[in-house]
Amino acid sequence: MGVHGHCHPRQVLVVADTYHLVADLGGTNVRFALVQEGKAVPEHVEKFANNNYDSFEEAAQDYLAKVGPLQPDKACIAVAAPIHGEPINLTNYGWQLWAPALCRQLGLREVVFVNDYQALALALPDLESSDRVQIGNHGCGVKHGTRLVIGPGTGLGVCGLVRAGEHNLPVSGEGGHISFAARTVQEVELMQAVAGESSVVSAEWLLNGKGLERLYNGLAAISGRQAVSISAREISQQALAGNLACVEALNLYCGFLGRVAGDYALIFGATGGVYLGGGILRRFPEFLAASPFRSEFDDKGVMGDYARAIPTFLITARHKTLWGACAWLRQGA
Amino acid sequence: MGVHGHCHPRQVLVVADTYHLVADLGGTNVRFALVQEGKAVPEHVEKFANNNYDSFEEAAQDYLAKVGPLQPDKACIAVAAPIHGEPINLTNYGWQLWAPALCRQLGLREVVFVNDYQALALALPDLESSDRVQIGNHGCGVKHGTRLVIGPGTGLGVCGLVRAGEHNLPVSGEGGHISFAARTVQEVELMQAVAGESSVVSAEWLLNGKGLERLYNGLAAISGRQAVSISAREISQQALAGNLACVEALNLYCGFLGRVAGDYALIFGATGGVYLGGGILRRFPEFLAASPFRSEFDDKGVMGDYARAIPTFLITARHKTLWGACAWLRQGA
Repeated sequence: MGVHGHCHPRQVLVVADTYHLVADLGGTNVRFALVQEGKAVPEHVEKFANNNYDSFEEAAQDYLAKVGPLQPDKACIAVAAPIHGEPINLTNYGWQLWAPALCRQLGLREVVFVNDYQALALALPDLESSDRVQIGNHGCGVKHGTRLVIGPGTGLGVCGLVRAGEHNLPVSGEGGHISFAARTVQEVELMQAVAGESSVVSAEWLLNGKGLERLYNGLAAISGRQAVSISAREISQQALAGNLACVEALNLYCGFLGRVAGDYALIFGATGGVYLGGGILRRFPEFLAASPFRSEFDDKGVMGDYARAIPTFLITARHKTLWGACAWLRQGA
Repeated sequence: MGVHGHCHPRQVLVVADTYHLVADLGGTNVRFALVQEGKAVPEHVEKFANNNYDSFEEAAQDYLAKVGPLQPDKACIAVAAPIHGEPINLTNYGWQLWAPALCRQLGLREVVFVNDYQALALALPDLESSDRVQIGNHGCGVKHGTRLVIGPGTGLGVCGLVRAGEHNLPVSGEGGHISFAARTVQEVELMQAVAGESSVVSAEWLLNGKGLERLYNGLAAISGRQAVSISAREISQQALAGNLACVEALNLYCGFLGRVAGDYALIFGATGGVYLGGGILRRFPEFLAASPFRSEFDDKGVMGDYARAIPTFLITARHKTLWGACAWLRQGA
């Protein structure tokens, strides 16, 4: 298709195939890709470290120079931040995103922003069975039923994907920040042990990247063991190696994730399936499948049958946020 | 407009003004109305007791005979039941709703069903300031921001209303059945006192028509008082009269409602406002406004500012479900 090549003059490329720029801008890295008008698959995915650049535009210009002489028409940028109007401020890097400036500097006709979990939700209908593993032995969900993606990472992303006529509409807010539903006195005592300065123990507080460490040290505090400095990655590694305290913490983490995921699924009516995203869970898919995740998901009282009919999946493929940005452009964002 | 009258022959009426039938079918009564094509306001609202009829069609035929010689074109029926395909079974009365049968028996071109809380959500954009009272001193919300309706009744209805292009899309599942987020040991003990046979204490269990009775008797059990047979209506009446045990129970009820409403608002990103529906809360609007409802709604840790910016309203007007059925027809359901 000549995107890389220099064999055609620039204007021929533009006329023959319209390409759009897509990006997945996280807290550390930004991924860029190109997508042909109307197509689902991002091409020429490249990753850049944010701290090598003074601005998003600069990184984008570097990417476009690298992939060859091509002028994208539009752009869809998935950002790991809430999207409440513009400019979008990425405080970590002092970057500011503003569509008119991006259009001017990158020669684009239109720039749209989407939250990264909204983008991941938009990618769900394009997932192949090789892009995911099913957690629990269940069906395939209701066709065109509402889907839901939940992703533990720096935060806890939560986004529904609702069918609206021929389009898919991402629906989200700040769902990670709901109060966690402790059920027993022991659980409340654990919540109080992990709460720290926070007045409210939210789902995100327990389930984001730091949540597993909090649960591990909360369990230690309750049972009189000494708190240790151990990362979430180490806890999950040692759990897979059979360390009992780590197994206990990781099982609790998976069970709490299942409880919360089931509640989100009830609220959205996610009969089309619940998808778990983010890098953390990909470290222990078999442990997750054997954990109390699914029994907690199903434990919904009179709505138990409703919950049991909802399939749950772990997204194993990477870069799916970029696919979602492509989907958003394709359905005429 | 001649809907009542007999002065015009039938066919003239049909040609001059197209009317549609709307209905709000609850567990005890059914309300019917007519709405002119493209209009927002239901006319000729009439209520019928379900147990006077053997079927929904029979009640509808009685209504249509009463309002005069008019053949509605379509119908939108709001039903107090989950809508998962047809037929819709209303087990209380053995009624079964099936669109092809209704079309045939009532001479309609099309019949659509909508859940009653989806219909109430669809009515939100048409609410006038006289149709609601604001709980807490807040702004008017984000224009076209997602709205949310929550209604304690026989169950606990929860439905978001999301802007999709030029349309409003109701988004709901079984949100009333999420686990209630107890935060303290005392609250967990109260949950265990009210749980009864249920393995899970859901939001609905605490907040539906029976929830106030459960909380009242749960508080009695914890403090060693004897359980008494008292209805939710009596508890709220006696709370307004200053009975301390009733005041305590009703304050707890309102606070728990606020906590749950705030969590739903975070999940949907309900920046357009949260609306409380159903008949129960209309019995004590001033008590609700003075209760911990809003402080619990706002108590969302790092998302406190986000929650505080969301206005909350009590819907005081009646028959708004019928308005929502009209809205659904108007936007071409």
